[in-house]
Amino acid sequence: MRSDYHANLRQLAELLHAMCEQDRTAISAATYAVVNADIEQAEAALDVVGRVEEMAQQTEQEALRLLALQAPVASELRRVVTAIQLTGHLQRMGALAGHIATSARRRHPQHVVPEPVRPLVERLGSTACAIATSAAAVLETGDPYDAAGLDAQDDALDHLHEQLLAAVLDHDWAHGITAAVDLTLLGRYYERFADNAVEVGRRTIFLTTGETADNWAPDDDG
Amino acid sequence: MRSDYHANLRQLAELLHAMCEQDRTAISAATYAVVNADIEQAEAALDVVGRVEEMAQQTEQEALRLLALQAPVASELRRVVTAIQLTGHLQRMGALAGHIATSARRRHPQHVVPEPVRPLVERLGSTACAIATSAAAVLETGDPYDAAGLDAQDDALDHLHEQLLAAVLDHDWAHGITAAVDLTLLGRYYERFADNAVEVGRRTIFLTTGETADNWAPDDDG
Repeated sequence: MRSDYHANLRQLAELLHAMCEQDRTAISAATYAVVNADIEQAEAALDVVGRVEEMAQQTEQEALRLLALQAPVASELRRVVTAIQLTGHLQRMGALAGHIATSARRRHPQHVVPEPVRPLVERLGSTACAIATSAAAVLETGDPYDAAGLDAQDDALDHLHEQLLAAVLDHDWAHGITAAVDLTLLGRYYERFADNAVEVGRRTIFLTTGETADNWAPDDDG
Repeated sequence: MRSDYHANLRQLAELLHAMCEQDRTAISAATYAVVNADIEQAEAALDVVGRVEEMAQQTEQEALRLLALQAPVASELRRVVTAIQLTGHLQRMGALAGHIATSARRRHPQHVVPEPVRPLVERLGSTACAIATSAAAVLETGDPYDAAGLDAQDDALDHLHEQLLAAVLDHDWAHGITAAVDLTLLGRYYERFADNAVEVGRRTIFLTTGETADNWAPDDDG
């Protein structure tokens, strides 16, 4: 019974990790789709998002079942409750990758992203992908230093996001308001994807150390 | 001990309800701020959002304490787990109202919203406010029919949101790209505020009936 219990806790952790890996796959495919107006990659991203949704249901049910059957206490109770909260963030990351893919699908065969800002969106995508990789690693290791490192990656993404907004607001912007609106939303989706990944890190820190993330964050945040 | 337990469950429900009321106050003040370039209402909204943050911490701690000390089972376990999930949505509603207030503060004393679209943003705000009112009522009564009604209010808000985007994308748009970008984000904040309120309704339905929201939703959603 007891060893079942620990097997179930491990399974819960593995589900969270697998969701985060799927989020990374989704944001990577969605970025390719939106940068290259590639409808197949857009559909592929949306398929992955569907799987994330299913995994989120499964993870919630598994966590509820663990609480009901095993009534865990202390650190194990915290693990299960945190798993429920992490599921919300990981599901949201999937949904945001889905919005990016949907944006590509809506404009296809037109491009969402005007040629001059494609490298910028590509870097937003690869940074978001790296953040999801880090979040998945933190979920696996529970290492608070790795989790704190997510903040630095998030800062890099915020910087790219600012550059994207600056490009859109530049006097020389020659791609019209539709593209400006699309890019404003795209930038927001990437930003929120990263925010949710950072939140995965923060909750993991709190779980493994009992301390809030601020105590582990690098000082450069002011 | 047992009556303490039920008092604690009631207290948890009251905290959720109070958070939702604060979200309504926040979106109302933030809308006034952004429509009228009113810095005092922007600050007032941000103060309320700070209180929502504190209440979210308190609610999470209270839920965790209940799980740890009382190991609730069956429907009561589901209530506590749902409370943790609802906290996430109610906290997010506050944060989104905060983004609207911050937008007003950033441009002050300039207006974020060009004069011709102010009535539209005002209606977005009053619809979001009504949605928060309904969500608070659902939290109080647990009535699944009320919760399903949230979907219709959300459809109304989506319709206003589409009108706002159409105004921004209209050939006659004469207010420049900065306003277009600001309004795109504003529209997105209202949309997400409403989505989270709908999610509050859905989770409440699932809690009181054990059925997914689709079984209660009106048919007009296709």
